[in-house]
Amino acid sequence: MNTNAIDFDRYDRIRPIRWTGQALELLDQRKLPFVVEYVTCADSDAVAEAIHALTVRGAPAIGIAAAWGVVLASRTVEANDGRDAAARLEPALQRLNAARPTAVNLAWALARMRRALAAAGADWREVLEREAQAIADEDLAANRRMGALGAALIPPGSGVLTHCNTGSLATAGFGTALGVIRAGVAEGRIDKVFAGETRPWLQGARLTVWELQQDGISPTLIADSAASHLMRSGDVQWVVVGADRICANGDTANKIGTYQLAIAARHHGLKFMVVAPSSTVDMETPSGDAIHIEERDPGELFAVGGVRTAADEIGAWNPVFDVTPHELIDAIVTERGVIERPDEAAMKAAFG
Amino acid sequence: MNTNAIDFDRYDRIRPIRWTGQALELLDQRKLPFVVEYVTCADSDAVAEAIHALTVRGAPAIGIAAAWGVVLASRTVEANDGRDAAARLEPALQRLNAARPTAVNLAWALARMRRALAAAGADWREVLEREAQAIADEDLAANRRMGALGAALIPPGSGVLTHCNTGSLATAGFGTALGVIRAGVAEGRIDKVFAGETRPWLQGARLTVWELQQDGISPTLIADSAASHLMRSGDVQWVVVGADRICANGDTANKIGTYQLAIAARHHGLKFMVVAPSSTVDMETPSGDAIHIEERDPGELFAVGGVRTAADEIGAWNPVFDVTPHELIDAIVTERGVIERPDEAAMKAAFG
Repeated sequence: MNTNAIDFDRYDRIRPIRWTGQALELLDQRKLPFVVEYVTCADSDAVAEAIHALTVRGAPAIGIAAAWGVVLASRTVEANDGRDAAARLEPALQRLNAARPTAVNLAWALARMRRALAAAGADWREVLEREAQAIADEDLAANRRMGALGAALIPPGSGVLTHCNTGSLATAGFGTALGVIRAGVAEGRIDKVFAGETRPWLQGARLTVWELQQDGISPTLIADSAASHLMRSGDVQWVVVGADRICANGDTANKIGTYQLAIAARHHGLKFMVVAPSSTVDMETPSGDAIHIEERDPGELFAVGGVRTAADEIGAWNPVFDVTPHELIDAIVTERGVIERPDEAAMKAAFG
Repeated sequence: MNTNAIDFDRYDRIRPIRWTGQALELLDQRKLPFVVEYVTCADSDAVAEAIHALTVRGAPAIGIAAAWGVVLASRTVEANDGRDAAARLEPALQRLNAARPTAVNLAWALARMRRALAAAGADWREVLEREAQAIADEDLAANRRMGALGAALIPPGSGVLTHCNTGSLATAGFGTALGVIRAGVAEGRIDKVFAGETRPWLQGARLTVWELQQDGISPTLIADSAASHLMRSGDVQWVVVGADRICANGDTANKIGTYQLAIAARHHGLKFMVVAPSSTVDMETPSGDAIHIEERDPGELFAVGGVRTAADEIGAWNPVFDVTPHELIDAIVTERGVIERPDEAAMKAAFG
């Protein structure tokens, strides 16, 4: 595998998070794809609010934004060393952490910032800034490596189907599952890219399609319900998705609809790949049965962009994630390598 | 089976088509569930336009509306007998037939009107009116019978999932798959009803949920992509859907997303039922491979209720139907009876 062969920049032009040295600029993902507008956050509370309000979304991107939020908080505090600063910054860190309590990478990034601070001396401000930059740089590097590793599994001439948004918009850049798709296109392995619209939030329709378009890749949008009909057509060889949590036995929680794609892929003899950084692996959770599936406001199913799509006062069930059992997964790709046919033993060998 | 045990009226209050004796009133399904408004069609061209514009939809409902359109046309023509009238009415019949050329029941209902006319004497106007009323009455009777037949397959305490709208709104009343669900609720067999929103047109969210609500049945709306997660929860025992065409081997074309539900139902060991009048059975089409799947304007995926949901100038694929192979179907219910585990032999025995 030669990751140098891929012209990363050509296929990866979007950056959702820009650090100017004085402020954090966030691409407003609520307005995409119709308005391309960066929001400037001048202090850490503005960053917390932007995370809460979904201006920035995607687990890795949220972690990176929060790390820069800590850097902004550091500008407002006087302290002699990291330990002193840590106490003064703790309220700001807690507000950032509370912005979206379920996003694993948010807590993970803030824990890294706390650790860096604990070991810092009088240069604690510079230490924080270097750590935030490192979190962002490592995320981009991990995504590029996953892209190359995952693409190597895909035979030339393939079509792929993805779900939700796992791209540059959700990360420091390049993306996880979309990174594999970028790399596969760059290497000439992938001819056709299909994206499910991903109800109810339409991340596929609003974000994935737009993001790939910016990079000269032309995906074909489908209704989520058309996936099996597409698979039967023979135009797709791999389903490539991200993950919100990967358990100790390889069971994977991801955006609602992922499980359905895995069942359909197996039914049609197609392959199913999960792509996520190793920070998504949770060896403390033994299997998918132990994952609490968050259910959101049913109102998300009653309107699109402010236009109502259903009657008032009806019942609805709006789970945000589902669990794909490891038996339906052909490969889990992290920056550490590829696990084919994941199970408890294979996961333990890689992450134990 | 005792169809008298079901209080049909209690669970079936909506009628999308009302004949006043002078005009046809159509419940405007484009405005549901937000505005409940009947449009009055005073002549056959207004009926053709209403069919074309989706004011009325659902294959049986379209057929019935077209039959009343012929009655309206008869008021504008002078003729001595049916044969004479047929020639004069043919342009109006052809305009009605062209309103939605793919709907099988439209051509079927117009063929019935033509046959009635061919045998009629001086009372040809009354013959046409009786035939239109018969088409509507027979549809309602068939739906009630299918409801009882289908419900009898469902054990007490069951949950069911349906797709699209197959209810009173799509027929003369009671519905096909929704008729089975009405009967199952009335008989105490069905405790929980789930409805997929049915992208891109949202017939489930807009029509099915509203229609059941009018009858005191409280369905739970889900995103189409949440169906497999729902099935895994154990809350559903049967998937019950309609059909647009049933082939000689039992393969069934229906609204996009149906095939995916059948795959998922089989994966979870759940049952899958197709409910449609015998006029939907097409013994001339040997299998699903021979069905041409209509693809509609990709723009349907780019907006909801006039609000855009995707970027401009993107590619999209918008098939309207898919085919569920007979191997995945546990029962086909028509007004003639139930075919369990349908295949070519079973279909030939019932419809050959």
